[in-house]
Amino acid sequence: MTYQPNKFTYSLLATLMFSAPSFAEITNFSVEPESWWADMENSSLQILVYGESISQMQVKLDQSQGVKLKQTHQSTSPNHLFIDLDLKNAQPQTLQFGLYDNDTFIQSFDYSIQAREVGSRDRQGFSNKDVIYLITPDRFVNGNPDNDNHPRMLESVNRSDKDGRHGGDIMGIRKSLPYLQDLGVTQLWINPLLENNQAQYSYHGYSTTDFYNIDPRFGSNEEYKSLVEEAQQFGIGIIKDVIVNHMGSGHRWMADFPTSTWINGQKQWQQNPQDIIYTSHRRTTVQGPYAIADDRSEFENGWFTDTMPDMNQTDPFMATYLIQNSIWWVEYAGLSGIREDTYSYADKAFLTRWSKAIMNEYPNFNIVGEEWTDNPITVSYWQAGKQNADGYVSHTPSMMDFPLYEVLISSLTENEDWGSGFINLYEMLANDVVYAKPTDLVLFEGNHDTNRLFSLMNDDIALYKMAMTYVMTSNRIPQMFYGSEVLMTSPTKDRNDGLVRGDFPGGWANDEVNVFKQQNLSERQADALAFNKTLLNFRKISLALQQGALSHYVPKDGVYIQARRYKAANRDETVLIIYNKNDQPQQLDLSRFKDVIGDNKNGENIFSQHSYSLDKSLTLKEKGVIILTLSK
Amino acid sequence: MTYQPNKFTYSLLATLMFSAPSFAEITNFSVEPESWWADMENSSLQILVYGESISQMQVKLDQSQGVKLKQTHQSTSPNHLFIDLDLKNAQPQTLQFGLYDNDTFIQSFDYSIQAREVGSRDRQGFSNKDVIYLITPDRFVNGNPDNDNHPRMLESVNRSDKDGRHGGDIMGIRKSLPYLQDLGVTQLWINPLLENNQAQYSYHGYSTTDFYNIDPRFGSNEEYKSLVEEAQQFGIGIIKDVIVNHMGSGHRWMADFPTSTWINGQKQWQQNPQDIIYTSHRRTTVQGPYAIADDRSEFENGWFTDTMPDMNQTDPFMATYLIQNSIWWVEYAGLSGIREDTYSYADKAFLTRWSKAIMNEYPNFNIVGEEWTDNPITVSYWQAGKQNADGYVSHTPSMMDFPLYEVLISSLTENEDWGSGFINLYEMLANDVVYAKPTDLVLFEGNHDTNRLFSLMNDDIALYKMAMTYVMTSNRIPQMFYGSEVLMTSPTKDRNDGLVRGDFPGGWANDEVNVFKQQNLSERQADALAFNKTLLNFRKISLALQQGALSHYVPKDGVYIQARRYKAANRDETVLIIYNKNDQPQQLDLSRFKDVIGDNKNGENIFSQHSYSLDKSLTLKEKGVIILTLSK
Repeated sequence: MTYQPNKFTYSLLATLMFSAPSFAEITNFSVEPESWWADMENSSLQILVYGESISQMQVKLDQSQGVKLKQTHQSTSPNHLFIDLDLKNAQPQTLQFGLYDNDTFIQSFDYSIQAREVGSRDRQGFSNKDVIYLITPDRFVNGNPDNDNHPRMLESVNRSDKDGRHGGDIMGIRKSLPYLQDLGVTQLWINPLLENNQAQYSYHGYSTTDFYNIDPRFGSNEEYKSLVEEAQQFGIGIIKDVIVNHMGSGHRWMADFPTSTWINGQKQWQQNPQDIIYTSHRRTTVQGPYAIADDRSEFENGWFTDTMPDMNQTDPFMATYLIQNSIWWVEYAGLSGIREDTYSYADKAFLTRWSKAIMNEYPNFNIVGEEWTDNPITVSYWQAGKQNADGYVSHTPSMMDFPLYEVLISSLTENEDWGSGFINLYEMLANDVVYAKPTDLVLFEGNHDTNRLFSLMNDDIALYKMAMTYVMTSNRIPQMFYGSEVLMTSPTKDRNDGLVRGDFPGGWANDEVNVFKQQNLSERQADALAFNKTLLNFRKISLALQQGALSHYVPKDGVYIQARRYKAANRDETVLIIYNKNDQPQQLDLSRFKDVIGDNKNGENIFSQHSYSLDKSLTLKEKGVIILTLSK
Repeated sequence: MTYQPNKFTYSLLATLMFSAPSFAEITNFSVEPESWWADMENSSLQILVYGESISQMQVKLDQSQGVKLKQTHQSTSPNHLFIDLDLKNAQPQTLQFGLYDNDTFIQSFDYSIQAREVGSRDRQGFSNKDVIYLITPDRFVNGNPDNDNHPRMLESVNRSDKDGRHGGDIMGIRKSLPYLQDLGVTQLWINPLLENNQAQYSYHGYSTTDFYNIDPRFGSNEEYKSLVEEAQQFGIGIIKDVIVNHMGSGHRWMADFPTSTWINGQKQWQQNPQDIIYTSHRRTTVQGPYAIADDRSEFENGWFTDTMPDMNQTDPFMATYLIQNSIWWVEYAGLSGIREDTYSYADKAFLTRWSKAIMNEYPNFNIVGEEWTDNPITVSYWQAGKQNADGYVSHTPSMMDFPLYEVLISSLTENEDWGSGFINLYEMLANDVVYAKPTDLVLFEGNHDTNRLFSLMNDDIALYKMAMTYVMTSNRIPQMFYGSEVLMTSPTKDRNDGLVRGDFPGGWANDEVNVFKQQNLSERQADALAFNKTLLNFRKISLALQQGALSHYVPKDGVYIQARRYKAANRDETVLIIYNKNDQPQQLDLSRFKDVIGDNKNGENIFSQHSYSLDKSLTLKEKGVIILTLSK
């Protein structure tokens, strides 16, 4: 697909994002961010004003309490203007700006500086206490069929197309909150909800065409904010999916860039829209000690696809725009976390600034980055606290644990042998030494880019339960993908995005199978759902799983044992997790495990409530997993 | 094979290792080490005296200049006694000790404290300047057929048995020195030469039965010392293969342990020689943050085989014995390095002490450890300077680079594709960040435990040349295996020790093919030999290869380029190494490589002397590798 400028037929209303503008004189007038807050840690603010021929105008701050207009920056685009404000002594208020052309007043506009919510700065980000549930919003629940299409949006709903829009929305997520709470979920990571006004293949949300507005087919900014508030009532936080690397080719900027270096390859592309350098996807060019700068540049600055122009974070205006945008959404919507897409593809110096700015603003917040590689060394580079060989510093507390995920999948489906099976899972954990804080990583059983767990486990419910258990009992922040709890399936070879992101059963009126109503679930699905409820709700209350020290035994004869122990002044909780890959019952001599059993006499399986004596040996009945809570 | 005590039928002479003993009264009298030196950094010395009923005796130092007898230690064995000496103010001299039984004089013995060779402490260990050549001495050259058998040695020569002794010896290595110098070799790592008086399978040398004597079938201590001196004349240093983890079951200790904890599992084994716990080979138990102590113990303290009892380095007497033994050989023979076998299998606290003691004694020395895993994180743990998560400290400067070796082999033989081929070699180097000093690692094209390179390269001479070039131009200390220069072969699946360690052609009288005489070499062999001579001798003079900064380009279209550049005040040398895996000629646009080409105009291939203009593009004629030295 190539760039077609005539697609940018926005109506005026589409770009109205400020509080109370009086825009009589200037065409297409808009201000980003639409508002800001007093008492932020960083008291600088840079406003991007858009409007016809606005670049040459002078700006005056007509009315303010403690706000200084520091500077304006003319743009290479006649229609963009940057205004720098100093909010150090700002009160909550409405500012009034005047725009002048050679002393001739053209227009004024209001700008709202709001009071922050109480406790905003100290908000708690997602943590080891949580279970994160990833939702692809178009495919989860269609709570409001009225917004499936929108007159201004190019792509219409088409549920029969696996790559089309299916109609899921924010309202659907809101309606599912009781179900999610019951399941034991405490955080929702929702794939991007911002406007993706692309002609086709827009449902996934990774082609942003408006950084300050929810896609109307998902809902509105207000509805998103309401979702956060409502979810809070159910003990659930919301994690925003942020993309700082690229945007959608349908963004209005593509017809009028705010600066001359707004995206990578901008000049070439303007001369010839076919002339795109794509990313090499060679991520080690960024951190390899012998890599050539040009190779790194090709990786960082190349585009993902022709519909995803690569933003240039080395442009200081772009950098500020993106940082403010991330913070605006945290503050506006009340988020408990950010998941940052295609992490290493953005400029690395920018990533330091971006993560630092957010964490400075919210010291207890959490950000998890996506670095898709099976190499822990590569992932560890990006985590806050890591002492990198090249001195690179990050402030992003968490990364997705792709290396452990990959081994989890392969080790469970491999035969048990000297060098295959559980031993690889055991040995991967020795690599935790490369991470600044391995327990801050997010471990998942699947996401929107991976094939479905149950299918990857060859439809073997025992292996599936082991995988879910491994994730939920790990010394990580666990994350699952919507529908995994009811064994949603997919092909297993190569990428199958449209199928992996299948519709959640019961999310659409008249769905034959309805998870919410427990209607027409297969026996296996019902079993899996019950299993996951027990598992997630156990993690919710288990300090051993949330914070306990991990120890594990070298796997032997197809049996692998992990222990988690939480020990404090008045509390001593031990949980034993026993994986058995043998089809035959297995007699387990417990003397080997004396170090973790200690003086406990009894172990109760959280799934069956069956009680095991820890005296001598233990019979593992069948292939599968048991979780024992130990007691004296 | 099980332990058979009746095999320890040593003659008295076999245990005479001291300078000038008078052993009339005590049967089987011996002293280890047989001598020591004044002016060592560590002025403490512990002598192990062996002799019938010696443990109860009192020791007096009858004659000495500045030597203090600090203490003696009675052993649980009636026939062992440890004597601690303080040599702080010792002059070179002969000490005289008296042994008394309740004030009755029994015997005296002399002990020589020698003067150190000038410059001994400052000796230069092997380094990036070197090319190491590994020799399996039984299989290299039979320089002295008279010592093929020895009356006291259990196993006789049998060249028709791939696992038997073939008769190679130290004299053979001495005779080969001109050839090795010509080839461009500067260091010899020789597989263990110490006595291995095992009933069978003794040729490899890893079952030490006497820590202070060269196996008589290889030569003598004096001959070993002569080899070192002679090699020095050819610009070649000698690296000793040291094993501190295990010994041979034929050692006399097995019938009479110096202490009650001399080997691991000693008590069990004494009760029942079948009762052996074998090592789990699970090396991550040592460094994994969640590993259980019992699992680590099983790895470290388990035996390799029933013929290789596992020495207990936590026994302080054993620890001192091993440390002194290593230092004794460096000082006695004049070594330039140590290769330490099965590194992680020994007690890790001991390894710290051992490496520290040696490097304290010889600050410019070098030690390379063998940790056979494809995981750089695991290898990096053992290198001096590494900041380990658990605080573990090592003083061993170098480790064998198994991870890079494994990828070198696989990447060359894989098809070039998105995730296979050269890209894996490229990406492995990004992992260099985990090493304290990656350039101090030893990279090899093969060793006595790996299948033969040419065979692994599917008998493809172009791939073979690429592998040899990669090793010899790497920013590592390069090491090759004897016979690789003439394409020695082996099977390629599983281990094939006896075949991999084949006889070097020309090492035995009447060998049909004789490398030394360039007799009956196949065309390919002659080509390979010439290629290696050029390659090794180029490294010998190339500062770029020895010390130059490495940079490399993401492989594209089956072509991979590395550059090495040495830049100093008056010198600027750049070497370009270009690997081409395509069967077809390849046109290489040089504009991509401007950063490494700089203002050089010309590149001369060291193999063909063909000169390439570096203006625009370069034609790679065929599958293979060229090394260009750049000039203006």
